[in-house]
Amino acid sequence: MRLRTVLSDDGSSHAEVHLDGQWYASTARDVAALLAAPDWRSVPLGADPQPTAAARPAPVVTTPGKIVCCGHNYRAHIAELGRPEPEFPTLFAKFADTLTAWNADIALPGAAESVGLDWEAELAIVVGAVLARADRDTARAGIAGYTVANDFSVRTWQHRTSQWLQGKAFDATTPLGPELITPDELPADGLRIVCRVNGVEEQVGSTDDLVFDPATLLSYISTFTTLRPGDVVLTGTPGGVGVAADPPRYLRAGDIVETEIEGIGVLRNRITPAHHTEIDSAPRNRKEAR
Amino acid sequence: MRLRTVLSDDGSSHAEVHLDGQWYASTARDVAALLAAPDWRSVPLGADPQPTAAARPAPVVTTPGKIVCCGHNYRAHIAELGRPEPEFPTLFAKFADTLTAWNADIALPGAAESVGLDWEAELAIVVGAVLARADRDTARAGIAGYTVANDFSVRTWQHRTSQWLQGKAFDATTPLGPELITPDELPADGLRIVCRVNGVEEQVGSTDDLVFDPATLLSYISTFTTLRPGDVVLTGTPGGVGVAADPPRYLRAGDIVETEIEGIGVLRNRITPAHHTEIDSAPRNRKEAR
Repeated sequence: MRLRTVLSDDGSSHAEVHLDGQWYASTARDVAALLAAPDWRSVPLGADPQPTAAARPAPVVTTPGKIVCCGHNYRAHIAELGRPEPEFPTLFAKFADTLTAWNADIALPGAAESVGLDWEAELAIVVGAVLARADRDTARAGIAGYTVANDFSVRTWQHRTSQWLQGKAFDATTPLGPELITPDELPADGLRIVCRVNGVEEQVGSTDDLVFDPATLLSYISTFTTLRPGDVVLTGTPGGVGVAADPPRYLRAGDIVETEIEGIGVLRNRITPAHHTEIDSAPRNRKEAR
Repeated sequence: MRLRTVLSDDGSSHAEVHLDGQWYASTARDVAALLAAPDWRSVPLGADPQPTAAARPAPVVTTPGKIVCCGHNYRAHIAELGRPEPEFPTLFAKFADTLTAWNADIALPGAAESVGLDWEAELAIVVGAVLARADRDTARAGIAGYTVANDFSVRTWQHRTSQWLQGKAFDATTPLGPELITPDELPADGLRIVCRVNGVEEQVGSTDDLVFDPATLLSYISTFTTLRPGDVVLTGTPGGVGVAADPPRYLRAGDIVETEIEGIGVLRNRITPAHHTEIDSAPRNRKEAR
């Protein structure tokens, strides 16, 4: 089964379900709301199929309560960073405001390359159950499905301090979509994951290269925080990011980034100039004289 | 003006406003919802004052969209960790599920001291406006008020990887309260901040010791993510945490932790045994053989 969230003409959103080759509208405001319904596989759907071409996409889930991201999870990426294989998942959070549609423009958060905008193709898990201290089997059963994300990262900000959040949490820089596919239709085993920049394959990996697989990640995360339907877990990125190149290469206005996972779909995002002329490079006044 | 959130007998919550020495109920479900009202200082209040003794406390805001935390922000704490004064704020996120009431029990997330539960008294800012790329003056005007938090931290988990999230995001481990006080009534300048464990002062600091003051923090954070009414920013902890002691000292079941900021109020939290017999110390199966 495939699910997606689309925008309506009035600016609201709703979830749609794919059946017999057509999309049908539900009354849920996004896929997360659909998944929160007790028996979401049998929610009533509109009688008429939706015209696919006219659909204006939203992120698969629009306002998840939690987005948990795992870094250093593909062996090839860990190797390119020169790090040992980890004993525990490296986890950080993102805000729902980071999410954007699969075809949205991504604005450079400052003057072109100097800000270090980099690509990170990722398999995204969408949670379909309440998971608290779940074992791996329970966690696996609580996976609603998979979708595609690009964890676009602002390397200069990411590395200003030890904690990555500020380079990972720029508003509207994490495309998520185009749709969710349920695990019965597509297990996340051995899927080819690719990131292309202007048509050139920069990242190529397989989800078999994950150190911590989806069920393990959800189980581990649920040890400290409760996961709920619609929550999102990003599973990390394979080798081939710009910051690991020698010399590092970053995105420029006009670049087209395509992020694809076999069997799920493709994100296609254009990099555009900064919304604002320049971004502050440092706090202006750290502490005023009193 | 002072604001608080209390639980009603039916399990719902509502915000209350302090006027003329009494608390009056609003229809807002928490202080965040109250702050989101266009003119929250003149929302209609119930005619009868609320009996203070009967109030069952909730966190000042119950479901903020964002909780952003600053580490390494008090000069004395930076010194005890042996670090240089930072050029940029070190920021990480917490989930709303971490919040709990000012008088709530805090359960050890595992077998007693071995898990390394530590105290971190913090001044908390509650946002009162939409702030996006706000300069310092705009950010200062967007502060709804201040309250008290303890960013109880699970040091073993915090230091499993480079990213602190997993040691900072255990559910119901961040008391926030007891109430919000507006900046017109109490500017956050030179306030004494104290953490007592079983009556012994472990942390004593002053908000004048902050490297990045509240307006600077909000301005900086708003550069990458939009802040909204009810969002919370934790400003960091002063010197005197358990992990910096020699040898390190951690909390045990039965300990009473009091967190106090002059002019705002006191949190009083009892440490209780783990809800569960033992916490997983490592992912059981990192990757199944295929």
